[in-house]
Amino acid sequence: MGLNFSHETLAQRVLFGTGLAAEHLAAEVSRLGASRLMVIAGHRDSDTVSALTAVLPVALHYSEIIQHVPLESAERARAAARENNVDLLVCLGGGSAVGLAKAIALDTTTPVIAIPTTYAGSEATNVWGLTEAGRKTTGIDARVLPVTVIYDAALSRMLPVELSVASGLNAMAHCIDSLWGPRADPINATLAAEGISALAAGLPAIISDPPGLDGREQALYGAYLSAVSFASAGSGMHHKICHVLGGSYNMPHAQTHAIILPHVLAFNAPFAPQAAERIAAAFGSPDAVTGLNALRKRLGAPSALKDYGFELANIPEAVSMILPVIPANNPRAVTAQNLTELLTAAFHGSTPRT
Amino acid sequence: MGLNFSHETLAQRVLFGTGLAAEHLAAEVSRLGASRLMVIAGHRDSDTVSALTAVLPVALHYSEIIQHVPLESAERARAAARENNVDLLVCLGGGSAVGLAKAIALDTTTPVIAIPTTYAGSEATNVWGLTEAGRKTTGIDARVLPVTVIYDAALSRMLPVELSVASGLNAMAHCIDSLWGPRADPINATLAAEGISALAAGLPAIISDPPGLDGREQALYGAYLSAVSFASAGSGMHHKICHVLGGSYNMPHAQTHAIILPHVLAFNAPFAPQAAERIAAAFGSPDAVTGLNALRKRLGAPSALKDYGFELANIPEAVSMILPVIPANNPRAVTAQNLTELLTAAFHGSTPRT
Repeated sequence: MGLNFSHETLAQRVLFGTGLAAEHLAAEVSRLGASRLMVIAGHRDSDTVSALTAVLPVALHYSEIIQHVPLESAERARAAARENNVDLLVCLGGGSAVGLAKAIALDTTTPVIAIPTTYAGSEATNVWGLTEAGRKTTGIDARVLPVTVIYDAALSRMLPVELSVASGLNAMAHCIDSLWGPRADPINATLAAEGISALAAGLPAIISDPPGLDGREQALYGAYLSAVSFASAGSGMHHKICHVLGGSYNMPHAQTHAIILPHVLAFNAPFAPQAAERIAAAFGSPDAVTGLNALRKRLGAPSALKDYGFELANIPEAVSMILPVIPANNPRAVTAQNLTELLTAAFHGSTPRT
Repeated sequence: MGLNFSHETLAQRVLFGTGLAAEHLAAEVSRLGASRLMVIAGHRDSDTVSALTAVLPVALHYSEIIQHVPLESAERARAAARENNVDLLVCLGGGSAVGLAKAIALDTTTPVIAIPTTYAGSEATNVWGLTEAGRKTTGIDARVLPVTVIYDAALSRMLPVELSVASGLNAMAHCIDSLWGPRADPINATLAAEGISALAAGLPAIISDPPGLDGREQALYGAYLSAVSFASAGSGMHHKICHVLGGSYNMPHAQTHAIILPHVLAFNAPFAPQAAERIAAAFGSPDAVTGLNALRKRLGAPSALKDYGFELANIPEAVSMILPVIPANNPRAVTAQNLTELLTAAFHGSTPRT
C-alpha cells in the first residue's frame, strides 16, 4: 500500500453553537485580552453586528467590503486599523469579509476572529488574496489564519436558499477535489468525507425547511471541514478547470462549480477507487457518481455550461489553457481528447455516468 | 440535533513514509535551522539512532530513559540540555522517550521532533507527565507538543508482535473512549473512527505477517489519529476505570485496557447510537460490540481481570473510587450497581454482548 505523505495541521479554535455567537465572541475577546476591536461586516449585517458586539470594546466598525479585495480597498482598511490602534479584527459575513480581514492581518499581524455566514470556507485557511489592476494574487501566510472561528447557524439563516445551495455546492467541490489535490493525504480525505456527509444531509434540509436550523448547522459544519481539507490538499483538477472557465470566459463562479464537479468526479472515480469508495460511503450511496447526481437533482443544481454563455467553440482554447495546470498526481491521465470530451459533456449538460 | 461544541486543533507537521525517517529528519533539522541536537533514545535503539543522525549536528546522545519520567531524571536531562546549548530535541522510541523530551521542553521551551516506534500516541498530544515520590502529575502545555512527528513503519518493525498488539489495543481504547470523552465532538469522532479502521486493519496484519510493513503503517497511522482525537476529547469512562485499576491495584497497563474496553463499549453503545454507528462502520461490522469482539478474538487479547491478580473482593472499593471520576457527559448514567456488574463481568472475562 505504501502510506507516504506530509500533512500540516493548522492551529485553530472552532466554537460551534446556534444562538451562541455573542457569548462565544465575548469569551474570545476576553481570552485574547483585546481592547480595541475593528469589526468588519457589510451594511446589511449592521444590525446583527451591533447585537453581537454591544458590550464589547469596539474601536471601529468597518463596512467597505469589496469582492476579491482590491489592493486600494485593503490599503484603506489597513490605514484605518492603524489609526485606531486596533488589536483584534472581527469579521462577519462571507469570503469577502474574511478576505479583507486577512489582507489587514497580513500587513499588521493583528489576530482575526471570523464569524462566517456562508459556506465559502476562507475562515479555515491560511490563504490570502488581493486584486491589483484586475489581477488577483494569492499567497499563503500563517498571519492570516483566523485564530478562532465562531459558527452560529442562526446567523446563516439570512442566506437565501438559492445562495445557500450555490455556496454549499462550492464547499462540496472543495471536499471532492481534496481527494486528489496535489497534497492529498488520508487525513484530508477523512475530513473531506465527513464534510461530504454533512453537506449532503444539510443542503436538502435547507431547501425543505428554509427557516430550520438543523440543515444550516450541518452545512456550516461541512463547509468548515471542506475548507480544512482543501487548504491542506490544494487545488485539484476540478478547481483548475473552474479557474480557467471563470477567469477567461467570465463564467459565474458557483454555477460553474456545480456544473463541472460531477464530470470531474465521473472522470477520476474509476482511477481512484479508495477515494471513490470514501465518497460513496459519505453519500450513503452505492457509488460516488450516483450519490452526487442524486444530490444535485434534489437541489436543482445547474447542469449545462451553454446556459451561462460558454460556447462550444471555446473548448479547444480552454483545453489548451487547462491541460498545463492539471496536477501531476491526478488519478487519471488528462489528455486533450478526454478533456475535450469532458467539457463537451458539461457544455450540453449530460448527466455523467459511472 | 443541535451541533454545539468547541474544538481546538493543535498545529503539527506529520511526515509519514516507510524508510524515509532519515531523509525527513534531515529536512526538518534544516527547516528549523537547528545546529545542536539532543537525541533521546534508549540503548537498544542506539544503532538506529546513529544511522538516522549520522550527517546531523548532534550535540548530545541521551539514553537515560525511565518510565513515567521521574522528576530527578527529568532534572538531569534538563541540565544536560542546558550544558550542551541544545536547540532541538529529537526523541525516538515509545511513550517514555517522548515523555522525557516533553519534560525538557516544558522547562527549556526547546522544540521537539518525535519519531515514535510504538502506538502510545504521546507524540501528538500537548500532555506532559512527571513522577515525584511515586506520584504522577500531568499537565497540558503548548511547549511540549512536538512540532513535527516522523512516522516510519520500518522502525516499528523492532516492536515484537505481542507488544504491537498490546500497544495497538491501547490506541484503540484512545479512539473509542474519544467518542464520549468530556470534550467529545464530531471532529474528534471523525478522526477516531478513521483510527479504528486503520488499527482494525493493521493489527491483524502484523500478526499474520510480522516482518511486513503494510500492517505496521496502518497501525502507526491509527495510533496517530487515536492520539489526536483523545487529546482533544479527554479521558472518558474507559480511561477513568483503567486509571483506578492501574493506580490502586497495580494491574498491568496494556492488559487492563484490553480487558475493560469491550465492557465499556457494550455499556455505552446503546446510549450513544451515533457513536456506535461510527464505530460499527469503522470496523465494517454490523454493530460496534461485534466488531471489537471479533478483532480481540483475532488478536488473542486478554479477557479476564482475575488472570492479572485482581480480586472479586476489590470491586466495591474500586467502584467507590471510579464513580466520582466518571465524566458527567457519559452517555449512560453510571451507578454503583451497573458499574459493579461491569467489573464483575470483566473479572470473569465474559464476552460482552450488544
